[in-house]
Amino acid sequence: MSKIRVAVVGYGTIGSRLADGVAVQDDMELVGVADVAPNLSLRALQEIGAPFKVFFVDEEKKDKFAAAGVQLAGSLDDLLSQVDVALDATPGGVGARMKDLYSKHNVKAIFQGGEKDDIADVFFHGYANYENGIGKDFLKLTSCNTTGLVRAVDALDRVVGVEKVAITIIRRVADPGDTHRGLVDVLQVEKVPNHQCVDLMKIMPHVQATGLLVHTPVTHGHIINLLATPKEPIGVEEVISIFKQHPRIRVVKISDGFDSNAAFFQYARHLGAKRADMYEIGVWEECVGLSGNDVMFAIYIPQEAVVIPETIDGIRACVPMQTDRLEAVGLTNKYLRMQARA
Amino acid sequence: MSKIRVAVVGYGTIGSRLADGVAVQDDMELVGVADVAPNLSLRALQEIGAPFKVFFVDEEKKDKFAAAGVQLAGSLDDLLSQVDVALDATPGGVGARMKDLYSKHNVKAIFQGGEKDDIADVFFHGYANYENGIGKDFLKLTSCNTTGLVRAVDALDRVVGVEKVAITIIRRVADPGDTHRGLVDVLQVEKVPNHQCVDLMKIMPHVQATGLLVHTPVTHGHIINLLATPKEPIGVEEVISIFKQHPRIRVVKISDGFDSNAAFFQYARHLGAKRADMYEIGVWEECVGLSGNDVMFAIYIPQEAVVIPETIDGIRACVPMQTDRLEAVGLTNKYLRMQARA
Amino acid sequence: MSKIRVAVVGYGTIGSRLADGVAVQDDMELVGVADVAPNLSLRALQEIGAPFKVFFVDEEKKDKFAAAGVQLAGSLDDLLSQVDVALDATPGGVGARMKDLYSKHNVKAIFQGGEKDDIADVFFHGYANYENGIGKDFLKLTSCNTTGLVRAVDALDRVVGVEKVAITIIRRVADPGDTHRGLVDVLQVEKVPNHQCVDLMKIMPHVQATGLLVHTPVTHGHIINLLATPKEPIGVEEVISIFKQHPRIRVVKISDGFDSNAAFFQYARHLGAKRADMYEIGVWEECVGLSGNDVMFAIYIPQEAVVIPETIDGIRACVPMQTDRLEAVGLTNKYLRMQARA
Amino acid sequence: MSKIRVAVVGYGTIGSRLADGVAVQDDMELVGVADVAPNLSLRALQEIGAPFKVFFVDEEKKDKFAAAGVQLAGSLDDLLSQVDVALDATPGGVGARMKDLYSKHNVKAIFQGGEKDDIADVFFHGYANYENGIGKDFLKLTSCNTTGLVRAVDALDRVVGVEKVAITIIRRVADPGDTHRGLVDVLQVEKVPNHQCVDLMKIMPHVQATGLLVHTPVTHGHIINLLATPKEPIGVEEVISIFKQHPRIRVVKISDGFDSNAAFFQYARHLGAKRADMYEIGVWEECVGLSGNDVMFAIYIPQEAVVIPETIDGIRACVPMQTDRLEAVGLTNKYLRMQARA
Repeated sequence: MSKIRVAVVGYGTIGSRLADGVAVQDDMELVGVADVAPNLSLRALQEIGAPFKVFFVDEEKKDKFAAAGVQLAGSLDDLLSQVDVALDATPGGVGARMKDLYSKHNVKAIFQGGEKDDIADVFFHGYANYENGIGKDFLKLTSCNTTGLVRAVDALDRVVGVEKVAITIIRRVADPGDTHRGLVDVLQVEKVPNHQCVDLMKIMPHVQATGLLVHTPVTHGHIINLLATPKEPIGVEEVISIFKQHPRIRVVKISDGFDSNAAFFQYARHLGAKRADMYEIGVWEECVGLSGNDVMFAIYIPQEAVVIPETIDGIRACVPMQTDRLEAVGLTNKYLRMQARA
Repeated sequence: MSKIRVAVVGYGTIGSRLADGVAVQDDMELVGVADVAPNLSLRALQEIGAPFKVFFVDEEKKDKFAAAGVQLAGSLDDLLSQVDVALDATPGGVGARMKDLYSKHNVKAIFQGGEKDDIADVFFHGYANYENGIGKDFLKLTSCNTTGLVRAVDALDRVVGVEKVAITIIRRVADPGDTHRGLVDVLQVEKVPNHQCVDLMKIMPHVQATGLLVHTPVTHGHIINLLATPKEPIGVEEVISIFKQHPRIRVVKISDGFDSNAAFFQYARHLGAKRADMYEIGVWEECVGLSGNDVMFAIYIPQEAVVIPETIDGIRACVPMQTDRLEAVGLTNKYLRMQARA
Repeated sequence: MSKIRVAVVGYGTIGSRLADGVAVQDDMELVGVADVAPNLSLRALQEIGAPFKVFFVDEEKKDKFAAAGVQLAGSLDDLLSQVDVALDATPGGVGARMKDLYSKHNVKAIFQGGEKDDIADVFFHGYANYENGIGKDFLKLTSCNTTGLVRAVDALDRVVGVEKVAITIIRRVADPGDTHRGLVDVLQVEKVPNHQCVDLMKIMPHVQATGLLVHTPVTHGHIINLLATPKEPIGVEEVISIFKQHPRIRVVKISDGFDSNAAFFQYARHLGAKRADMYEIGVWEECVGLSGNDVMFAIYIPQEAVVIPETIDGIRACVPMQTDRLEAVGLTNKYLRMQARA
Repeated sequence: MSKIRVAVVGYGTIGSRLADGVAVQDDMELVGVADVAPNLSLRALQEIGAPFKVFFVDEEKKDKFAAAGVQLAGSLDDLLSQVDVALDATPGGVGARMKDLYSKHNVKAIFQGGEKDDIADVFFHGYANYENGIGKDFLKLTSCNTTGLVRAVDALDRVVGVEKVAITIIRRVADPGDTHRGLVDVLQVEKVPNHQCVDLMKIMPHVQATGLLVHTPVTHGHIINLLATPKEPIGVEEVISIFKQHPRIRVVKISDGFDSNAAFFQYARHLGAKRADMYEIGVWEECVGLSGNDVMFAIYIPQEAVVIPETIDGIRACVPMQTDRLEAVGLTNKYLRMQARA
């Protein structure tokens, strides 16, 4: 089978990471990336030797790339004419305008969580509902929080069954370096239930979910505290064991120094991962507990990179490259070097 | 009945507020406040005309008060010889050393949450276990989070009964102006269960509690998200109604502008409360929801002032000034101008 | 002379404080305040007994006041028909639209720093160029940073003459409780020179100014570090003495506990000032130093309240109530209880 | 010449980066790193295949490494017996205790800025006073702020001569992930002059320096605003040109997206640098300006990595490997891939 050709449209926080993720998949070819302007990510890409081809979106802003020393390989139309699948990583809401273009080029597309649900045929999560995405033209990924949330709940659900979850999202309000949004010395609350619960129920309709979301002035990842009602009693050790066996969940200990969301970020820096990115969600062993039969556990969501694996799963589903869920996610994991640690 | 004479030992964050709270109780007399050094609170007290008498703790540091222009009325011994009850608001752990002094002067004492439980005869909360404190020599108050937590759970419990609670504490890590502690761009987690759950079960042994605590880089109050399992089903409106009828709970709406912890602080500033202090815990109407039969609701804890009413209740119990719980808390509320808004 | 009748248009961060400031001027009458919606400040105003009359701006949104329990005394037109001077505290840019209304009612108006300079006849500062505002119809106040900056530079300039200043503004990026703006873990820089330098030169054209502004994720006041080149050598003690003699400058010591911007806020809380407001700028004695003949000193700018005195000076100038600068600012100071501490 | 053998003692924020820096110097051999406990950096080192040998410091805590899966190559004594130079990156103050050990093993040592000056024969900066370090047994590096400050001032000084500098340090108060220190919503001031000025004068005794330091609640690097008095007039373009020609200074534009300290960090993440480390200090073109003849410019200090190049210069000096300043720093730069961009 020849390699599936992929374009990444939008080279920002998510797009730049999607490009790296696709580039290491042996059965995919990253044909190029497109953006409207030579942002810092693209300037850095040029400084390290331009490993990816760059395409411009807007003819009128083409000159800015030259001024920034960023070489262009053509227009977005040129790019789309060469690919099978487009990963749309444009700002929330822009994807809807891009959809016609993808259709025109007869290219399948995967949208991110910032778009409305009706943009796509399927609201998709690689582990939880892979089958629904097989062969579809347009998929929409879950947002970063929902992606991680579903990953964890699905892991438990496939072993013991989960009846309902009540969650508290302690949300990072900005990405590192953002100057266009933020909070100072404020915990901002949103109405119960938050949209992530609603989204979880769309992906996993057999689970009842509600929750509160609180925005906090930090950048290095969300923390979600869950209270899951299992269909049968389960012990703390068993819960930890289930998570340890999941290739996309990293179980750590506070006593080892993982005492915060930022500790994961620091650890990833020391691992030498590009941008200190981490694809796994985290679980603290000491933060798993029981409330009667309900299981309490907290997860860490690295908001910048967590959706990369599930988006790549989406490519596998929509083409389709694989029709078996575990084969598909297994390949994504293999190429991203994610593996169970238990 | 003559007024009960009260001393406040330690004029910091809690002590300065206890002094103001006692000063407005018609049946109490604030004899004076004591501290080891002329801190900013004492300097400000002097600038506004020295409404309270100030006593020194340490003979050797006496001169510092003069240098700061703070007039002294005598030593801590002098102060304790004139009072019935001492409110200990010294830094955590110091109270244990003060206890002998209180005993020597035959003065009853109420310690704050930073002390160990065994310092006191009773671990006390005005609304939840007033009876246990009646006539005792030494009481220990719950910490700020536990005080608010118990207030809310007790309110529900007395109406429908509460079986268990699972909580997530989103904790402010420093008080405004603190330079001796803090966090930057970090959400620090602690082991499940946090001590506030354990403390709640000491005060309300019939309720099972567990929870997670996450430190966040803010100063204007904690937020706790609770999932309470009631003994019988209860609706959202009923829960809101119960809270509205409680004189120490303020129910607000996000849609009115109360969209954060800091909104309460801002509101208190506009109310003209001294130091923008608020004795009530807060509840957001839009953050009350159901998860099956379980009730989810979030409370706001103004960490600097929330323990003042319950500490004053403690004076009423230990003397005892009142033996009836509702009479006692009712008087505290009346003098602090706290009342139900429903 | 009968009292000058004043309206405050916009009851937000600045407007609510202007109202309080005007209300205590014995020679002025606060006729009322107007706003488009019952924000938290107005709700709090109602809760404390509605000391000021409230007028609505927008007929269509009138019902919202009733829903919030805020009693109305009439429309903005009603208010303007009863006053001599309007203090415009609407959001930046809105003032320009209000100007016609003020003209129509033949009311003088004072705009805040968020408006463009050409909205007014004079760019005004009570201490530095009072004379320029006398009898004018429209004044524009300097922004919070510029107000404090000019206060300090003018103080030095009147004693020794200041040739030039080079400044570094360490700017608080949001007010307490703001959720519509903010920064997290970022120091955002702006081009040299910042607008405050340019503004200073408009008010004090004989002083050359340049500087850098850096936004920082805090809420309790700006800090500006200045390097002023005096016309003749001056010692550290003399500089401190000049500041101590200024009624709108508070000189403090780090060694007394004033170790930050927030320490001033905390101190004001303990003083019992409404909202913990402080009209004075602050100077730390230990932060005054020399660099050759140049004088380095840092000032604290309480961004919420600092412009109140100079705005009230503006009322005195534009009517005019006083034609002598020192008489005018002296009256403002007297009624605001500001006085030299040397 | 055989390779100079180097040990890194302390594998924390600085030590882990020193190890990486030494490892890429073709004329040096990193024999190993030592620490007292298997911290997160060492655990990550193990996870990526243990590229460096690890030695334990404390016999009693040896078992913890095994428990963490970190393989040991021996004791600190074993390590020191195999090297020519030890880079001491232990916590501030510990270095003094280590000095005897280095002497015992006849190993030269380079201490970091947290130690007292008298620990070393020379207070060292690779660019500014390389000659003073040649052949010495013990060097002490400047702290991160001083290292960057001296780099920039020395660059100007060698071209036009600098008479004096007045600086404002806007200091990050914690490193990413720190939970043992921090500030929330506070700008903490320190006395004028700050120690960095005093340190600069020790390295460059012919330059007069003073300044203010303000701690701010951020983690991604300090910003220093300087006002330098040159010996002869110099234009903005010339200043920018001098900085562009310096291999350890990166000149950027706000208009390109570098609008903050964190923008440098983000850019380094996209460059793929390990841990997003950046050795260069930054300068914003738009933040260079003139105040009369004085030059104002702001520099960015990446506190975690900025001292690595100068520390490696120190190895070259103390052995000595090179006696020519420019040859030495040129080799360090070459191996660290730092080069002028003009």
